[in-house]
Amino acid sequence: MHTQFKTIGIIGKHSDPRIADTISNLHRFLSQKGHRVIVDLKCATLLAESSIESCETQSLGRLCDLAIAIGGDGTFLAATRAIVDFNIPIIGINLGRLGFLVDISPEQIQCKLNNILQGKYTEEKRYLLHTKIIRDEQIIHQETSVNEVVVHRWVTPSMIEIVTHIDGVYLNSQRSDGLIISTPTGSTAYSLSAGGPIIHPSLNALVLVPLSPHTLSNRPIVIDDNSEIEISFCQTKQINALVTCDHLEIPKVLISDKILIKKLPTPIRILHPEDHDFFNTLRKKLNWSSGYNN
Amino acid sequence: MHTQFKTIGIIGKHSDPRIADTISNLHRFLSQKGHRVIVDLKCATLLAESSIESCETQSLGRLCDLAIAIGGDGTFLAATRAIVDFNIPIIGINLGRLGFLVDISPEQIQCKLNNILQGKYTEEKRYLLHTKIIRDEQIIHQETSVNEVVVHRWVTPSMIEIVTHIDGVYLNSQRSDGLIISTPTGSTAYSLSAGGPIIHPSLNALVLVPLSPHTLSNRPIVIDDNSEIEISFCQTKQINALVTCDHLEIPKVLISDKILIKKLPTPIRILHPEDHDFFNTLRKKLNWSSGYNN
Amino acid sequence: MHTQFKTIGIIGKHSDPRIADTISNLHRFLSQKGHRVIVDLKCATLLAESSIESCETQSLGRLCDLAIAIGGDGTFLAATRAIVDFNIPIIGINLGRLGFLVDISPEQIQCKLNNILQGKYTEEKRYLLHTKIIRDEQIIHQETSVNEVVVHRWVTPSMIEIVTHIDGVYLNSQRSDGLIISTPTGSTAYSLSAGGPIIHPSLNALVLVPLSPHTLSNRPIVIDDNSEIEISFCQTKQINALVTCDHLEIPKVLISDKILIKKLPTPIRILHPEDHDFFNTLRKKLNWSSGYNN
Amino acid sequence: MHTQFKTIGIIGKHSDPRIADTISNLHRFLSQKGHRVIVDLKCATLLAESSIESCETQSLGRLCDLAIAIGGDGTFLAATRAIVDFNIPIIGINLGRLGFLVDISPEQIQCKLNNILQGKYTEEKRYLLHTKIIRDEQIIHQETSVNEVVVHRWVTPSMIEIVTHIDGVYLNSQRSDGLIISTPTGSTAYSLSAGGPIIHPSLNALVLVPLSPHTLSNRPIVIDDNSEIEISFCQTKQINALVTCDHLEIPKVLISDKILIKKLPTPIRILHPEDHDFFNTLRKKLNWSSGYNN
Repeated sequence: MHTQFKTIGIIGKHSDPRIADTISNLHRFLSQKGHRVIVDLKCATLLAESSIESCETQSLGRLCDLAIAIGGDGTFLAATRAIVDFNIPIIGINLGRLGFLVDISPEQIQCKLNNILQGKYTEEKRYLLHTKIIRDEQIIHQETSVNEVVVHRWVTPSMIEIVTHIDGVYLNSQRSDGLIISTPTGSTAYSLSAGGPIIHPSLNALVLVPLSPHTLSNRPIVIDDNSEIEISFCQTKQINALVTCDHLEIPKVLISDKILIKKLPTPIRILHPEDHDFFNTLRKKLNWSSGYNN
Repeated sequence: MHTQFKTIGIIGKHSDPRIADTISNLHRFLSQKGHRVIVDLKCATLLAESSIESCETQSLGRLCDLAIAIGGDGTFLAATRAIVDFNIPIIGINLGRLGFLVDISPEQIQCKLNNILQGKYTEEKRYLLHTKIIRDEQIIHQETSVNEVVVHRWVTPSMIEIVTHIDGVYLNSQRSDGLIISTPTGSTAYSLSAGGPIIHPSLNALVLVPLSPHTLSNRPIVIDDNSEIEISFCQTKQINALVTCDHLEIPKVLISDKILIKKLPTPIRILHPEDHDFFNTLRKKLNWSSGYNN
Repeated sequence: MHTQFKTIGIIGKHSDPRIADTISNLHRFLSQKGHRVIVDLKCATLLAESSIESCETQSLGRLCDLAIAIGGDGTFLAATRAIVDFNIPIIGINLGRLGFLVDISPEQIQCKLNNILQGKYTEEKRYLLHTKIIRDEQIIHQETSVNEVVVHRWVTPSMIEIVTHIDGVYLNSQRSDGLIISTPTGSTAYSLSAGGPIIHPSLNALVLVPLSPHTLSNRPIVIDDNSEIEISFCQTKQINALVTCDHLEIPKVLISDKILIKKLPTPIRILHPEDHDFFNTLRKKLNWSSGYNN
Repeated sequence: MHTQFKTIGIIGKHSDPRIADTISNLHRFLSQKGHRVIVDLKCATLLAESSIESCETQSLGRLCDLAIAIGGDGTFLAATRAIVDFNIPIIGINLGRLGFLVDISPEQIQCKLNNILQGKYTEEKRYLLHTKIIRDEQIIHQETSVNEVVVHRWVTPSMIEIVTHIDGVYLNSQRSDGLIISTPTGSTAYSLSAGGPIIHPSLNALVLVPLSPHTLSNRPIVIDDNSEIEISFCQTKQINALVTCDHLEIPKVLISDKILIKKLPTPIRILHPEDHDFFNTLRKKLNWSSGYNN
């Protein structure tokens, strides 16, 4: 056993019917190799084995030396947010369908995971965003996101006017359906659907992508990821704003609030098999091999 | 006086400070020419003259032979919806800023309006959309729109899955932020911001524009405007859907409801000065004369 | 034998190694049913059978009552252009890969073709574009296209300035890499790559799609297909312009020439199996079933 | 006189009728302050003053401590390429129309230039691209570009297939009209027209933007600017490829050649007034203040 990863935590997509089998297999594989294995409580209840050690998701980071997320990219995002304060590395395993973040398939567990546990891996740093909601100069809420922060049109049928400052310098006021602030990790998710570019994971950058902007020359802007982004609104009516961090809604944001977004200083560490190839994942996920006609 | 337009109704953007002056001038101009003039009640209260005849917006269509909308394109849309059942023509006057629909500026009233009232005009037909919400095979709500119908992601942080049939034939299921069904009139409004094409007003077509679709090859589709469009959803949770007709929200739509969209058989009739030129308006509104760099 | 299609012409993609077998099978199938079959000369030379009747491509339209194109959409385009003056219908058969125009696969020949030949088919009209190059008020060249006409930046490293009139009315001058004028048929080909919308084949429309326009608000414009489009250029230097009709280059066009584009009055007639479904083809060709991530 | 800039070279857009006046004024202003001023030969011949010192463009970098480019962004690009080997800073002055690179207007010369010459300036580094054409493992041509390298469809009516490797790792093969490799500086030029994102000038990044790609999910990709990009082609026919560096065409590239693109290690240094604000230029150049309708 590679002493680096004595205790390994497993977080799975508990709503997926295939999860119990995959976790059981993984648990057996890791235990046989001498690792202590702790399973996320919600998943543990799905397993037949009663003797399996488990704990709440939020405790896994404290107890483990390595986290393994099993499911889709969404599961990986949730797992990442749970362990972000503990600086432990994370590995992503999918349930049969390749993801950008969950790049190991169930049948590769034996081979690829074995190599990683023996120290043969590529470590990749991904920076997260930290969002603070400011009201009357007080932080009233904060949240972390791996992919993106979205400031979105709430339940109103008309566009909103979003004012953006970068490092205190006025960028623009735009009438639109909203604005995405995405990390390179998020650039292949929602941001891509909204017309944003793909950003290589190794680049220290963020991208601001407007949603259906009224002014047609409002286009995605890529900036340094050390920038602090401040979002405010032009409207004066006291209605709620819709701010989401990786699909997690921040409750009760008012449009008189300010939204401050900055990257977290400490990145998460993703462990990949040594043959990991981002471009290969990109080609597979975006169907680049197949043209749309002949 | 051209006998065709004996009684003329005026509907204005009552929130605009310039509206009182413009209506007063217009009222005097039309009265002197022998027309009976009825002003929308909300605007009439803004005027100094106490003797001006007025009525509720919804009665104007019944009482008048011609409607004049004063304001922006939004005012024109509201006025159009008010008169749509009465088959009277409508003229659009702006308050200093050219609109796609309000193409006569205040200083052109004397000259251009005079010509129109004497029968020198171009009549343009624009078809409207009629939306029905179906629950348990009953129509529970219906609404008319000039520009577009939007089926939008409601207050949920994740995409929705929209199923579309055209004339009973399955088109697709798309995960996205929503779908716009736009008329040619609406093609230069929200639809354009969302990536839709410009459609010439004379073309009998509709365009379906997806909002941030998950599948990148989901693109705007232009179809015949005689098609009936049926929208439903894949989700099963009983939450509300957000359906808007020209920025007017249809209340309490459930995602188990069906949305049927079809053009109204009778178009509205817009009267333009004889020198009206859609391409000229397009160039001005979209700043086509000015490049973004040299 | 359905008397309507006594003589059937076959045009194939002669560069494809699978073509000989498919034509042989088709020839046998049709001959056994009593049709006279004439094979395009280039394909006939690929066949083992020496007794097969053949002729030049351009004579097929005159000799036959029905044309069958075998290959990809490109083969279908070439076949269509060859028969356009003879008003005979055409059927498209692919070589294993579905096309927008070649919708019958080789293994469906027995079943689907049989039905069509017995009169069980859907006839679809597709209008073609006719392009004339005018120099000193003389037509110096003309060409027909099924998909699109492209006016393209020639071998010069800078943008060109294209002036467009629609039915004699000035539309705009745009600096760009070029302009596509596409039929609904062409809207799923090059035009789609350049950002144009999908246009339903039944719609009587054309779309003008700018290629990398300098002014970001220059967007695709959909117009009535009865419009005459006139293209000219701003430059004065006498260099060549690049004008292509369905990938066929018109030689020696000068930028002082005018380009007139109008639809041909007589459409081509495509015969489809009765279960033909454009939306189904669209979903298959554009991979709409498969999202890009989960 | 600030000793830092003893000798100042001036390069102007000699085809512009306003250039003579602007250079004369600038020359007088600089001479009076004690600077030695050398004017680009082509511009010097336009001036009435016979005593003005001049030299060939390519000698300016060697003779001067500072270059001033007067004209549009195109003039600035040409001037930059002329001085790139000499590591002297450059200032951009426009002729009445703001550019992204020529940010000082003629009437600001007195005030803003004075401050810069006294050492009150912001220095901005911009990295350039270096392109090598490789044939039979020999460099047969090389060129420098400030904005972008474009590999473009040459005089052939069909798409080309471009194979890209980044740092030796295969990215993709794409059928398209071409590929732009752009610096942040170039991201607001041609790349923007082709759908690329705006990249902040301070970001160490490059963007690859496909031109009308056949596969609709081929999207702009932003990568680290330390990457080496290798472009090759799939075709085998020996025809010429069109490769341009900032609108400068590299002659006689064959599609069997390889194209290697890497940033130059030494950046150019642009001096801006201290109140220089990239976002302000962006808003002005892209008309962000004015919406397209109301």
